[in-house]
Amino acid sequence: MSQPGALIIGAGPGISGAFGSALVAAGYRVALAARNLERLRPLATGMGATAFAADASSPASIVQLFSDVDAALGPPEVVLFNPSARMRGELLGIDIELAASAIQSTAVGALVTAQEAARRMLPRGRGSIFFTGATASIKGFASSSVFAMGKFAVRGLAQSLARELAPAGIHVVHFVIDGGVLKDGGTLKDGGARKEAGTLKEGGIEQGERLEGFSPEAIAKSYMAALAQPRGAWSWELELRSFKEPF
Amino acid sequence: MSQPGALIIGAGPGISGAFGSALVAAGYRVALAARNLERLRPLATGMGATAFAADASSPASIVQLFSDVDAALGPPEVVLFNPSARMRGELLGIDIELAASAIQSTAVGALVTAQEAARRMLPRGRGSIFFTGATASIKGFASSSVFAMGKFAVRGLAQSLARELAPAGIHVVHFVIDGGVLKDGGTLKDGGARKEAGTLKEGGIEQGERLEGFSPEAIAKSYMAALAQPRGAWSWELELRSFKEPF
Amino acid sequence: MSQPGALIIGAGPGISGAFGSALVAAGYRVALAARNLERLRPLATGMGATAFAADASSPASIVQLFSDVDAALGPPEVVLFNPSARMRGELLGIDIELAASAIQSTAVGALVTAQEAARRMLPRGRGSIFFTGATASIKGFASSSVFAMGKFAVRGLAQSLARELAPAGIHVVHFVIDGGVLKDGGTLKDGGARKEAGTLKEGGIEQGERLEGFSPEAIAKSYMAALAQPRGAWSWELELRSFKEPF
Amino acid sequence: MSQPGALIIGAGPGISGAFGSALVAAGYRVALAARNLERLRPLATGMGATAFAADASSPASIVQLFSDVDAALGPPEVVLFNPSARMRGELLGIDIELAASAIQSTAVGALVTAQEAARRMLPRGRGSIFFTGATASIKGFASSSVFAMGKFAVRGLAQSLARELAPAGIHVVHFVIDGGVLKDGGTLKDGGARKEAGTLKEGGIEQGERLEGFSPEAIAKSYMAALAQPRGAWSWELELRSFKEPF
Repeated sequence: MSQPGALIIGAGPGISGAFGSALVAAGYRVALAARNLERLRPLATGMGATAFAADASSPASIVQLFSDVDAALGPPEVVLFNPSARMRGELLGIDIELAASAIQSTAVGALVTAQEAARRMLPRGRGSIFFTGATASIKGFASSSVFAMGKFAVRGLAQSLARELAPAGIHVVHFVIDGGVLKDGGTLKDGGARKEAGTLKEGGIEQGERLEGFSPEAIAKSYMAALAQPRGAWSWELELRSFKEPF
Repeated sequence: MSQPGALIIGAGPGISGAFGSALVAAGYRVALAARNLERLRPLATGMGATAFAADASSPASIVQLFSDVDAALGPPEVVLFNPSARMRGELLGIDIELAASAIQSTAVGALVTAQEAARRMLPRGRGSIFFTGATASIKGFASSSVFAMGKFAVRGLAQSLARELAPAGIHVVHFVIDGGVLKDGGTLKDGGARKEAGTLKEGGIEQGERLEGFSPEAIAKSYMAALAQPRGAWSWELELRSFKEPF
Repeated sequence: MSQPGALIIGAGPGISGAFGSALVAAGYRVALAARNLERLRPLATGMGATAFAADASSPASIVQLFSDVDAALGPPEVVLFNPSARMRGELLGIDIELAASAIQSTAVGALVTAQEAARRMLPRGRGSIFFTGATASIKGFASSSVFAMGKFAVRGLAQSLARELAPAGIHVVHFVIDGGVLKDGGTLKDGGARKEAGTLKEGGIEQGERLEGFSPEAIAKSYMAALAQPRGAWSWELELRSFKEPF
Repeated sequence: MSQPGALIIGAGPGISGAFGSALVAAGYRVALAARNLERLRPLATGMGATAFAADASSPASIVQLFSDVDAALGPPEVVLFNPSARMRGELLGIDIELAASAIQSTAVGALVTAQEAARRMLPRGRGSIFFTGATASIKGFASSSVFAMGKFAVRGLAQSLARELAPAGIHVVHFVIDGGVLKDGGTLKDGGARKEAGTLKEGGIEQGERLEGFSPEAIAKSYMAALAQPRGAWSWELELRSFKEPF
């Protein structure tokens, strides 16, 4: 097949789902990977993608995933590392073992993913490796130190790899998602406002309206635009927020 | 006419020219403005745009320009402020009067442009105001303090306005052009490498090749992508560099 | 005299006054300059400094000031540029002429000051040039674009000069004063909290208490520490805020 | 004893040693901790400090260390986390297990240290927690992604904790050491120049000369100045480089 392949790790109904759909629409053969294959399957089927089980916190599982994808769809030209282990709480209440494992799964998961992706892209001299970041990637908030540690680490990785891999034709992009993203089907009355994001109610809304809020679909458009950047003019980082989001 | 209008201030054959062409191709009625109308006209005619004379260092001239454009094409929905007064040299050799005028024309020119643009966009609740920045917008180099002052000031303006105008539906974007941009017709053997940029020779090359170098065309693609961002997910700043550019 | 000289431009009872007092205590001969000589004199006399009249918005006045200080105290080894023209308001309401003059006096005032300072320091291969910045030096707020433009410009200048002058033994430091500074004699019940800063009431408080709030005295300690940095380990920028200040 | 206590983790003859000496000179009872007690002891003895064995890569070892220091010197008012696991190499050659353990020991080591320090400082409402960072804390270089991940993570931790702990009176500072630090006894002919730093030869030099280079002693002066900042005007981050260091 001459269709290029794409792999999304940490796939769900949010950004990764919208990006997956956009990739399918653009002609990519898309692989979605998440821990829970049963929950992932309907999403994958719905968009015309293939579902794979993988645990982003396990290096071996990620290595295996890339092999599985190679066999099923061929080596991917686009890879998105999306998951992150969020953990909140004041310093004294942090369980060190849980914290270590959260940092590990975010940071090392991103590293292994990048390594497996680059292993396939370097010989071809092209490919895109994307990382989904958060406000916490660039700003360490009180009571959120563990989350900041993982996200800062991924940003450090992305910046190093942008410098290292660009001359070899591989495009590394780190997306800073600044704000609470709308849930699927969410109404947009308060779209984009960070505080209200958690309380958005179900509701049938149009695609046009969805693009007014900090929706997965609105965000995915910029992922696709980054993918379309000619290598003469690349960005390595992209901050995204709703027009209503204070910053 | 239902075609939206666009105005590019500080227009020439580089980024502004490529962005102008892309806007025309996308259905915009495009106004190009520069000091030297005679030199500008062939460029404008060539791309199907209208040429206007304006001096970005004169607030009155910019105000007049907007009136002229209103009359000819209607109020613009897209405005790009592109010019900047580059000035190099060590601190002791700086002519203060020239420096003051360089800072003035860069910074105040950008401010008046933004004010006139917003005056037309705020009532409609939409529009895009773009600023072309440089490496010097985010990094003050030795022997380049005056240039850094002007470019830092424009970035401060852009960030303030991004915060101020976003909730009113106006998209402000600051582009950090990190590297020497290829001249028109430049060969791409060393495309994107900052040092060689000045020595690029003439040569007939294909559009595809142009996109491999840090060319106006490659850059303009990201200006168009910023324009296409739905307001649910905006970026206020975009760094761009060739894949060969160290940073 | 073997006492080193220091010059503070934009002197008043705040940061500049506290830094002046600390310099006098450390054995410097201190020159304070401000537009209003009558208001400045008691402050100068009170701390054992000499008062000079100068208008920071006029390059000629700054050049004259340096000559006057040379004659009276010898060429200064420490120079602080402290003033800034604050201007608030939404974009459409900005008076462009006032804005131009605010940017000019902040940015060009800082440039001329640096040039005159370096002219005297470069032959000796040592000296310190300090700039007082604000939150607006690194963050452009809504309704504060003109202030941000001036402060961003000064930061660009400071960073350029830090790179340019450090190898010649001249220490350039930009201080980011993040928060509302306590007024003289202010009580410290809410010291450092930005919102309350404007409403602080008069009251007799001890020096120790003053150091608990975002007071000129607390800030001046870090100016003195920057002055004491051996050139083996310099900082070019220092952010300062009260322990109670959110950021 | 009314002498305050200080604990330095990852102690050696460099920055930590110079900071330790400065603390002793300022009247602190100083505890130095490192993996190799035999190598640490002469350093500790030489400066009048007490040596402790601890493995920064083991949370349990750090917890035990704090108990040991409590018993011997009382709970520390100053804690410096100094170690970092440097690891270089291109992406494809990275051993994931080694990388995971390097990130873990840098990031989780810093987190446990901060937690144990804060546990003792919060009840007293004062104390200082310092982290030694590097250029890689703010800039991810090619072929240095693992090092950047660990250092970025520590910076994220430091920024979160600066926000979280400042209102409780605890001063968190992250030092960005930008350049190669002189080795003990190093001659200063090329002091501070990053490239030469590795080749500095032994030689008897004066303390004054040492302060001209990017020496531990020069750096320690700024650690002491940060410690002396009154809480009315704190910095949470301090970049340090030699006057000869390009940046």
